Amino acid sequence: MESNRARIAIDAMGGDHAPDEVVAGALLAQAELDVEVLLVGNPELIEASVKENGGSLDSVKIVPAEGMIEMTEEPLSALRKKRKASINVAMNLVKKGEADAVVSAGHSGAAMAAALLRLGRLPGIDRPAIGAVFPTLIAGKQVLVLDVGANVDCRPNFLDQFATMGSIYSQDVLGTESPKVGLLNIGEEPNKGNEASVQTYPLLERNPNINFVGNAEGRDVLSGQFDVIVCDGFTGNVLLKFAEAVGGVALQIIKEELPRGVRGKVGAVVLKPNLLNIKQRMDHAEHGGGLLLGVAGVCIISHGSSKAPSIFNAIRLAKEAADHQVSDRIRSCYQQTVAVANGE
Amino acid sequence: MESNRARIAIDAMGGDHAPDEVVAGALLAQAELDVEVLLVGNPELIEASVKENGGSLDSVKIVPAEGMIEMTEEPLSALRKKRKASINVAMNLVKKGEADAVVSAGHSGAAMAAALLRLGRLPGIDRPAIGAVFPTLIAGKQVLVLDVGANVDCRPNFLDQFATMGSIYSQDVLGTESPKVGLLNIGEEPNKGNEASVQTYPLLERNPNINFVGNAEGRDVLSGQFDVIVCDGFTGNVLLKFAEAVGGVALQIIKEELPRGVRGKVGAVVLKPNLLNIKQRMDHAEHGGGLLLGVAGVCIISHGSSKAPSIFNAIRLAKEAADHQVSDRIRSCYQQTVAVANGE
Repeated sequence: MESNRARIAIDAMGGDHAPDEVVAGALLAQAELDVEVLLVGNPELIEASVKENGGSLDSVKIVPAEGMIEMTEEPLSALRKKRKASINVAMNLVKKGEADAVVSAGHSGAAMAAALLRLGRLPGIDRPAIGAVFPTLIAGKQVLVLDVGANVDCRPNFLDQFATMGSIYSQDVLGTESPKVGLLNIGEEPNKGNEASVQTYPLLERNPNINFVGNAEGRDVLSGQFDVIVCDGFTGNVLLKFAEAVGGVALQIIKEELPRGVRGKVGAVVLKPNLLNIKQRMDHAEHGGGLLLGVAGVCIISHGSSKAPSIFNAIRLAKEAADHQVSDRIRSCYQQTVAVANGE
Repeated sequence: MESNRARIAIDAMGGDHAPDEVVAGALLAQAELDVEVLLVGNPELIEASVKENGGSLDSVKIVPAEGMIEMTEEPLSALRKKRKASINVAMNLVKKGEADAVVSAGHSGAAMAAALLRLGRLPGIDRPAIGAVFPTLIAGKQVLVLDVGANVDCRPNFLDQFATMGSIYSQDVLGTESPKVGLLNIGEEPNKGNEASVQTYPLLERNPNINFVGNAEGRDVLSGQFDVIVCDGFTGNVLLKFAEAVGGVALQIIKEELPRGVRGKVGAVVLKPNLLNIKQRMDHAEHGGGLLLGVAGVCIISHGSSKAPSIFNAIRLAKEAADHQVSDRIRSCYQQTVAVANGE
């Protein structure tokens, strides 16, 4: 089984807490998940970090890289100038078949650009999208929202492709049977919405690869009625960041209101373990990151603020996408569609 | 002081729970706020509803109307066909100076169209916007988000006008000194975002009527760092409906997790009053509705699902906007700007 174990290249230099928290998450993943991690970056810093985290240098592979893309740099020119930057080296590992997936908590624009430059788009896909998984009201059920930031202005055919890719991901990785696809919109009727959504609706209706069930309003996102929701990357990004913050706002209100008065103080102490469960269910750190769909390889783009648990979850996400060969499935779906269109 | 009391025309036929809940909210407002309500609609139904709610027919004014705009109707043609529909009659009261504001929980597109047709746009305003007030992490501080649904595709100058209108509202009605205005976007830098936001940024920087502090990301909306956030009506509507639903999701998680186990059951009983406070702070019913800014009059557009407390809050919102003469302030702001531009 050794040869089937997913090999995950980790951009050890990317993120606000790199390399220590990134390495910590990677070591945890290697211990608990059936994966092999490749730590990409400055070998001295990574080695120090492995020791710091109580890991053994014998058990991890380090792939040397020089430098990284800073948050202030313009991605494309920086990637061209710094060919040996950690994100470039990590992507090259996938390109050369030496890794199955990349995880990065560094500059997200740079990670996306590096994936496009090194791995390329899948045939049939005009624009890759970043998908993010949200929890829903239905326990254990998740909804995939895409795009959450890769493409701020979307043409209708981009959104149509997001629907296909999201549907494949939901089916294969999240295990949803015939995923219900919705178009994020401001009303239920087909003629509602902005220009892009009005034009996208009929494309989704005709898309043979998805189960399109209609428009999804803001209130429907977390309802569990939809498995995949497509939107432009502007709206999706605003929604994602709002959703991440709103859990914190709710927790803050609970923290302020719950211990008020004597009854409150007593009750809050009694309920401490239950409050931790609430925190966990609302906490976005559980989710790990966004999945870049539509490039020829698996890339997980994590939050810059990721700590070890988020990196661990990102690696699990990467493993699942790699194990299910999502990219290959998208590729063959489009090849079949083209074949059908050509009457083959 | 009788003559200064705000006169609020209520579309008594509009909304899922009309007329009973609408009338109940109106009676409560007349009893508790310094307002005079004018109930517009079918007199028999309204009279029955006043009695049902324990009100006295002597204390309320009923303005007869015939029919209403159904949710399934196309607003413009329906408004033209049904000239005596309750929303048309209510708007005409403002136009004739017989009322200071309109509140409707009916077809929101119809309410907006009726306001445009009957009252008209303010000079200097290309498109009216719907503003919604969100609570923030800072106790007692609110943020006004606009547009939340009137204009799905926005040109940069529309967004610039929203900023001016929102700033005036925040200053005059919410009492904010030099309101901090943000542009909803996906990053902090001026060059981030979609085409509309990139083009809007420099307009906001140059706008002499506002205190523009930069881009606001999704995570910043509820932070309390901004007083006014401008966005297109598509993104704003998705955000508003998501925010309304997410409070319910948080409450659902609390309800599920808090009473788990013996400790949980005991603690939850002890904490019942505090949980009610939490519900209240997260509950959107408190907010009453959206304010239509940019028309020559005050219009509050409430949720179709509004019950008496929401109608009450909508009337309070209407009273505050009418008392502060927000429309006149917007008008004079643009007249001054034109005068300055002409070197007067």
